[in-house]
Order: sequence, then structure tokens, then C-alpha cells
Amino acid sequence: MAKFQISVPASSANIGPGFDVLGLSLDYSMTVDVETSSGPGDFVLTYEGDSADSVSTKPSENMVTQVALYVLRCNGMEDFPVGVRAHVKNPIPLGRGMGSSASAAIAGVMLANEVAKLGLSKDEMMDYVLMLERHPDNVMAAMMGGLVASFLRELSEEERKAFEPSDDDLLKHRALTIPPKKLASYFRFPWNPDMKAIVVIPEFHLATSKARSVLPQTYSRADAIFNLQRLVMLTAAIGQSPVQADVVCEAMQDKLHQPYRASLVPGLTEIINTLKPENLPGVCGSCLSGAGPTVLALATANFEKIAETMVGIFKKNGINCRYLVLSPAFGGASVTYSS
Amino acid sequence: MAKFQISVPASSANIGPGFDVLGLSLDYSMTVDVETSSGPGDFVLTYEGDSADSVSTKPSENMVTQVALYVLRCNGMEDFPVGVRAHVKNPIPLGRGMGSSASAAIAGVMLANEVAKLGLSKDEMMDYVLMLERHPDNVMAAMMGGLVASFLRELSEEERKAFEPSDDDLLKHRALTIPPKKLASYFRFPWNPDMKAIVVIPEFHLATSKARSVLPQTYSRADAIFNLQRLVMLTAAIGQSPVQADVVCEAMQDKLHQPYRASLVPGLTEIINTLKPENLPGVCGSCLSGAGPTVLALATANFEKIAETMVGIFKKNGINCRYLVLSPAFGGASVTYSS
Repeated sequence: MAKFQISVPASSANIGPGFDVLGLSLDYSMTVDVETSSGPGDFVLTYEGDSADSVSTKPSENMVTQVALYVLRCNGMEDFPVGVRAHVKNPIPLGRGMGSSASAAIAGVMLANEVAKLGLSKDEMMDYVLMLERHPDNVMAAMMGGLVASFLRELSEEERKAFEPSDDDLLKHRALTIPPKKLASYFRFPWNPDMKAIVVIPEFHLATSKARSVLPQTYSRADAIFNLQRLVMLTAAIGQSPVQADVVCEAMQDKLHQPYRASLVPGLTEIINTLKPENLPGVCGSCLSGAGPTVLALATANFEKIAETMVGIFKKNGINCRYLVLSPAFGGASVTYSS
Repeated sequence: MAKFQISVPASSANIGPGFDVLGLSLDYSMTVDVETSSGPGDFVLTYEGDSADSVSTKPSENMVTQVALYVLRCNGMEDFPVGVRAHVKNPIPLGRGMGSSASAAIAGVMLANEVAKLGLSKDEMMDYVLMLERHPDNVMAAMMGGLVASFLRELSEEERKAFEPSDDDLLKHRALTIPPKKLASYFRFPWNPDMKAIVVIPEFHLATSKARSVLPQTYSRADAIFNLQRLVMLTAAIGQSPVQADVVCEAMQDKLHQPYRASLVPGLTEIINTLKPENLPGVCGSCLSGAGPTVLALATANFEKIAETMVGIFKKNGINCRYLVLSPAFGGASVTYSS
């Protein structure tokens, strides 16, 4: 018998010019309270929080338990080795660009790791997570904490095959594919301690697949270099004390995805153009959070005023939304045992 | 009467994935020894070093003095206000991708600044330099020192017009255009103290215009993101102690210019594929220096062996070359007065 809590933060990907590169964990966490029995038994799953009416609590259908079962199968088990009662409490809104599925995948791997005593490190757990969330930006930030750049390494032919089955095949037990090792590299950047993320969450969903479908297949050399130049400046400037708001704000610009997604998030362009330090002291720029529709602003002061400006612009565009002022979750995902 | 020495380091641009972004100053400097008279007088220029037979020592034709004259004209002078004897000593090879023209432009602005006592800061001098070298990567590294990321800010319509005249118009006195202010931003990155740059300089010239003509106009999304991911990792990993050679080496990869320029520098691809830490302990990756043909390797040990491996591969491809093992020039460009 054991009692523990898994905690996994929300995350924003595509920070500023860091399209498919930069993720930020947010101190706004999904928790899973777990009790295991000493011997075999049932799995009882309960859920409260965002989209509670549409989230399944069947272990074969819920993402957290589906992922856990995938990990167990990779480790020679067909099911949970002991009885489990798990209560998921999830404030992270689904389908809004705040990494809810990334958090669920991490929670699932951690659940399997603890229940089956697999003894996996965070790095080893990430290989399983990456089989299910092929873009490492959200999951790496949520797992490791803070502001994180990450990328998948280039795979050998054999590894590429192991990486091929769809998430759905893995989750529905239609494929048993053990992940290649050390799939991703990551690096965590310093963060100015005064800096917070203001996330403004519109009341509508935007499917990542739709947000991806509007992107072009190619970019001009100038646009590719534009992002390269800003990204390298952003990761350096964001950790400085005192922060140079104008430098961070200039470095937050993007030409690889936001211009194409602006039409899917009415108000985005006006928010980005308005949130400049010369207009709103304290603000250090803004960007789409992940594939949207959530918009994230960086600021070191005047959080409420900045948030209300953003909410006002969305409202003018006929979109209701709520906001949160969040610090990064520096510790990333964690497990805490209670005695 | 005054006596001073201007010293400007060589530089490598396009380090690894940092195409048009990352520059590295190299402790291999062009010097200009200057003596001024107390009143008006002639300008006597002498030159020794690379390409001495083709470098003009007419003040109206030499790049250093042409640039100085441009700066003087922007500041209301038609000529040097005092007599000057200047001796340029330049070991930096011309047209090999080691920033020789960047160094000459900086030396020219510094010469004008000292001789006419303009009192310009390095930041202010950079605006003049950038009118002549529109890509900031080499010049910013050579001026500021160390490993530097830089970019031109977006210009207003009016500023864009001021930025329009060609280098040639400015140097040949066919246009008097005062530069817009604060044209470029830059950031200097930490550097592991054991890390050195091995530059292998082939015995042939490669015009930047030719090296640029082979580049594509557009890039796939995957290639643009590939460089973004590696660049952000490189600038973070290169300053770590101890350095993770495998991480730096993976982060040194590029898909934006090297694949297209490989045919212009026979041996480049083999050098990049060979210079991996698992083959050659101490090496941390390699890349084209600027637009080539010089190839630069990063390493923390075994410098001679790595250099000879590179020279051997070039030789196999019928190309003779020499090599240098250099530290960054951390102080950048400088002026020293002798009493």
C-alpha cells in the first residue's frame, strides 16, 4: 500500500520566435492523487476539473491511464500490477494551447513508473512521453520545469521505424513499440525572478491540427533568419536582471507561425502590437501560447492592467476570456509520497 | 601630435546553425599604427600583410581610409583635419571568410573617431560600420569581442531610405548619408575558457556574392526549425564548464547554408562528418567560417591533431591550406595611445 501525489504543470510552447523550440512550464498543475493496494485489484479512476463531462474515467479510454498502460506493456506487464485508486484534479483547460495533453501524458508515465516501481529517471520517462507527444516543447518544459528549449535528435532508420506508430496505435494497444533511447535534448534557460506569464484564455477551442493546417510549407530566407536572430536574443535576455523590457519585447517577435494563425485568433495581432513597454510599463512582449487560442504575455509589473488590456481587446473582437498570472513551475513534474 | 594603435580582430560569422546571426571574434588582429601631426598635413598610408600587392595605399582607394573619410564627411569635415601617417599591418586573409573587410571598416571608423576627436562610443561607431557592412554578424563580433549574436532592427520608411545607398556610393563619396541610430542589437554569450577555434584556411578565394548566389530563396519548415532548435542549444551549451562536446557538436549542425555551399568547398562535408567527439576527442564540431572557404572547428583539446585531420581532408580534395589555433578576442576592437 502506498499513497502519493503526481503533480504536472501546464505549459506554453512556441514562446515568441521559438516555434517548435521553446516551452515554458506554468505553475498551474494537474494533480493525480494515488492510492495503491498491496496486491492485485481494480483500477478506480475519478476526475474533476476542466471538461469533466467529456473526459472518460474508463482506464482504457482516459489518456493518463492509457499512457500508463502503454509504459507497463513496454515493461512486460499487461495491466497494473496492484489495485489503484487515482483521482485526477485538472484545472488546465483542454484544447487551448496550455499543454493539457502534454501534462496528461507525463502524469501517465509517472503513474506507471511509481505503481510498477520501474525506477525510471525523468530522462528515461521522457522517451515514453515523446512517443505520444512528438513535439518535445510542451512535454520537456512540463517535465523539467522553467523555460526550456528542446529538440528530437535525428533518428537512425531503425529508430525511425520504432517512432512510426501513431499515438492512437500506442494508446489503443494496437502496437507495442519500445521508444528509442534519449530521443530529445533539452536546455533550461535562466529566468528573471520578477518575470511572470499572463495567460489569457479565450472561451473557444482551437484544434492543433487546424492551427497547423494554416502554416505554409516553406519560408523565405529572411523570415527564417528573422526568427533565428530573435530566438537567440530572447533566451539570453529573458534571464537578465534587471530585464531590458524593450530588448525582450523586440526578441519576442515571430514570423513563422503567428502571422498565419492571426486570423484564427481575432485580436491576437492587436494584442501583440499594443503590448509594448512604451505603451504599458512592465510588459515585455506577448505571443500565441502553443497553437492558441490562449495568448501569453511576459511582464515584470502591472500584471492586472496588462491582463485587462488583453481581455478588453479580445472582448472588442467578440471573444470572452479569463486570465491567470503565473510564474514558471521551476521544478517541473514531481511525485510526493505521503507517509 | 599623437601616437596610437588601432587593433581589430578577425571574425568568423555563420557559426554552426547561426546563419546571419552568430559571429565570433578571433585573436588574430589587423593593427593600424597612427601618428598625427599638430596641424593640417598629408595622409601617408603604408600597408603590410595579406595581399600586399593588390591593396591600394591611396587614401581615396584604401578601404580603411575610405571608411574614415565617410565618417568625417558625416561629421562636417571634408578631409582629415590633421596630417596622418598610418601603417596597416594585416595578417587577416582577404576573401576567405575571416571578416577582413569587417575589420577594415571598423578600423576606418575608429581612425576617424580618434583623428577628428569625435568621441563616438562603440555603439555609435557601429552605426557607421553597419552602413558599409549590412550584415552585422562579423562586424559586431569584431567590435564587441567574444561570441556575439546580432541583428538589424526593423527600420522605418525614412530610415530605410537612409540605409539604401550602396557601400560603393558611400565610400566613393557619391552619397552623404548619415546612418540611422542604434541600427543593431547584440548579445554576447559565455564561452568555455578551454574552447578554441581552429581555422583552416584554403589557398583559394571565394567571393561572398558567389557563395550567396547558391543559396535557395526559401526553406522548408523543417529546415527552418532545425536551425532554430540547434542555435538556441549552441549558445547555451558553448559556455558550460565542463563543456558537453556531444551536445555542442549536435548543436553545431546547419541546414540553411552549408548544404548549398558544400560543392564550393570540396572537403567541407567530410570534415563536418569526421570532426565528432567520438572520432576525435576534444573536438566539439565544425562549420564553414562566414561564406567560406575557411572552415572552423571548435575544440577543447588535441588542437594540432584536429587541425591536421582537417588539412588532410582538404589535401585529399586537392586543396592546400594552412591553419591557426585561436582564442576569441574577448575585448573586441581597441585603441591604445602611447605616451
